[in-house]
Amino acid sequence: PPSPLQPLGILRAPCRAFSNNKILVELDESTGVATMKFKSPPVNSYSLDFLTEFCISMEKLENNRACRGVIFTSAVPKIFSAGLDITEMCGKSMEHYAEFWRAVQEMWLRVYGSNMVTVAAVNGSSPAGGCLVALSCDYRIMVENPKFIIGLNEAQLGIVAPFWFKDTFVNVVGHRIAERSLQLGSLHPAPDALKLGLVDELVPEEKLQERAVAVMAQWLALPDHARQLTKSMMRKAVLDRLIAHREEDTQNFVSFVSKESIQKSLRMYMEMLKKK
Amino acid sequence: PPSPLQPLGILRAPCRAFSNNKILVELDESTGVATMKFKSPPVNSYSLDFLTEFCISMEKLENNRACRGVIFTSAVPKIFSAGLDITEMCGKSMEHYAEFWRAVQEMWLRVYGSNMVTVAAVNGSSPAGGCLVALSCDYRIMVENPKFIIGLNEAQLGIVAPFWFKDTFVNVVGHRIAERSLQLGSLHPAPDALKLGLVDELVPEEKLQERAVAVMAQWLALPDHARQLTKSMMRKAVLDRLIAHREEDTQNFVSFVSKESIQKSLRMYMEMLKKK
Amino acid sequence: PPSPLQPLGILRAPCRAFSNNKILVELDESTGVATMKFKSPPVNSYSLDFLTEFCISMEKLENNRACRGVIFTSAVPKIFSAGLDITEMCGKSMEHYAEFWRAVQEMWLRVYGSNMVTVAAVNGSSPAGGCLVALSCDYRIMVENPKFIIGLNEAQLGIVAPFWFKDTFVNVVGHRIAERSLQLGSLHPAPDALKLGLVDELVPEEKLQERAVAVMAQWLALPDHARQLTKSMMRKAVLDRLIAHREEDTQNFVSFVSKESIQKSLRMYMEMLKKK
Repeated sequence: PPSPLQPLGILRAPCRAFSNNKILVELDESTGVATMKFKSPPVNSYSLDFLTEFCISMEKLENNRACRGVIFTSAVPKIFSAGLDITEMCGKSMEHYAEFWRAVQEMWLRVYGSNMVTVAAVNGSSPAGGCLVALSCDYRIMVENPKFIIGLNEAQLGIVAPFWFKDTFVNVVGHRIAERSLQLGSLHPAPDALKLGLVDELVPEEKLQERAVAVMAQWLALPDHARQLTKSMMRKAVLDRLIAHREEDTQNFVSFVSKESIQKSLRMYMEMLKKK
Repeated sequence: PPSPLQPLGILRAPCRAFSNNKILVELDESTGVATMKFKSPPVNSYSLDFLTEFCISMEKLENNRACRGVIFTSAVPKIFSAGLDITEMCGKSMEHYAEFWRAVQEMWLRVYGSNMVTVAAVNGSSPAGGCLVALSCDYRIMVENPKFIIGLNEAQLGIVAPFWFKDTFVNVVGHRIAERSLQLGSLHPAPDALKLGLVDELVPEEKLQERAVAVMAQWLALPDHARQLTKSMMRKAVLDRLIAHREEDTQNFVSFVSKESIQKSLRMYMEMLKKK
Repeated sequence: PPSPLQPLGILRAPCRAFSNNKILVELDESTGVATMKFKSPPVNSYSLDFLTEFCISMEKLENNRACRGVIFTSAVPKIFSAGLDITEMCGKSMEHYAEFWRAVQEMWLRVYGSNMVTVAAVNGSSPAGGCLVALSCDYRIMVENPKFIIGLNEAQLGIVAPFWFKDTFVNVVGHRIAERSLQLGSLHPAPDALKLGLVDELVPEEKLQERAVAVMAQWLALPDHARQLTKSMMRKAVLDRLIAHREEDTQNFVSFVSKESIQKSLRMYMEMLKKK
């Protein structure tokens, strides 16, 4: 398909073994709709392996003329994704942090800039990076369970969401809601997330897949080319901002995460998670 | 009146015969309020003649110190305006496409940048360019009939709304609603349009004129100069963006619309309309 | 505390006598929360003395490691603040107007760019500059009395809100609501202000203080550093815009306010206020 959205640099880990066991990709060739199902227990966190597999899968789908849309969902009960894998950010080398961060950027560029229709079928909690992937889709459906929470809660962990997380958030919920939610590091129960516009609709869990397919069909009814150019027009400014500052953003992350104070916070946070 | 908003180039068709039969302009000198009533059946589409007449009428009102506000409405039942006249975009010369597009730009610059108070009294459906004129006013009142629909549905026709349509839309409904509505090429029934903020209020058809006059009086109660400067402050960035890229935008339109694939789509679309 | 937000120039009136009788500042060292209570009857207007005292108080709190948050409220019944003191803008020298305007800018820079958590406890009407201070806080609670009104009503007085008032307003309520409200110079009763997003919540007057303290505690539960950096990320663009054009903005104000036509309007407005 024609590609008005071409924000993507070269995938940074082309030689990495393609494990293909963290994400289940299924393509229904009759409808042109793929499903990417995250199955990396316990919480689908974005390890470097996960991210690499994610980006390779996205690239394959993007280049497959038989595929026009992709649904993201989780195979792990109660969690969509917990976001970045903290073990990748703790006790590793500067080179590792940089490689990891480039993979996070690449994931976002591929989802936010995708030519395909992207639908998040959020069937569990979705903090931080999990929320980011949902925010980067064209449409978000969440299970109506108020125990499932979603938000960019970085501030709660003593860290700051990168500017492109913020830009993506502002484009979905507007400046005021983003400002308040980001500063408080809020995790919103599904009904609140709907009210704030963070997700587009809620459905009972057993209806989620069916509804995602129906929404996808509605978006695929449009001619691809016009829809893709329109999407690009809406998202280009925000995509270009990261592309223009990608290396700088990586260096910021590396120098931030290597700080002893941050390493200490992250170790304490991991200890706390282990005890749970 | 003082003119803080001066985005307008020279009107491009100064020698065109002023037909003055597609728009009925009435000025109530006692209130300073003009009404521009579109009467170009069957659907008030923006032909080059319509646009020329529109721009000349606007210029006259803008320069008339007795006129402080203008209400746009339709004399054709059930339709406000269907937007751009597709016959102007089909089987004509490159020069014609360019002239037509400059007239479309001129219309928008004159409405969005008007020093007058502008109120859209939307008494029928208002797709594409029809919606654009409504979005460019200071206030939008729509008849509450759910059969009347409004939206920027370009993507449905396989074409892409220009960036300044998009900017105008985002300024009214925000980024998220614009992104979704533009990609889907949605035409929203009046009640949905109200919920989305696309129009400001709904009234029964028989109350429309009265309500438009009352709203106008409320806006005219403000001192012109302060109101005009405030309006300019809010709209200048978006106006300047087209003014800075006007010729480029025209060339984009011309090269897009001259493509054989687009000509074919437009011919098919016209055939479909004729059969209706 | 670390200071990611450093928009502040040198305070322009360092030798001014520090009257310290227009604002009551109380710091609860056990919670780290200060209260700045405006007590400048009849309407807490921002005279040069008020502004100087305000900025000095803010600077002291900002530099006091024991202080992490500040609540703004009024000691005068029924009024939060009426905004700029018109007597400072009438019949004075150009130098005086410039000094006054720099103090207004300084107040905004200090509140909008504060590293502290800022909560407005709006216990009375809050037009113009009064509204600006509320809009510049992290959170706004207003007494639910519909007789209390709030808004940027400059256009009603024949003047134009500066671009940074507008930017602050747009960041809170979005472009469309700001455009309409600014052009009409609307003063919104508390319930309408809540619906428009101009304030975050309404409470009965007797609950205001308690609620402000509870909200503050919620915001202070976050680690300061991450919250401050997040706040800076959200507000930096708008702060930088005034900082980059501060002197130009001052000269605009001075030349505007010195016009005979404006002086005449302001004198008439003051006469009207005196008769009330």
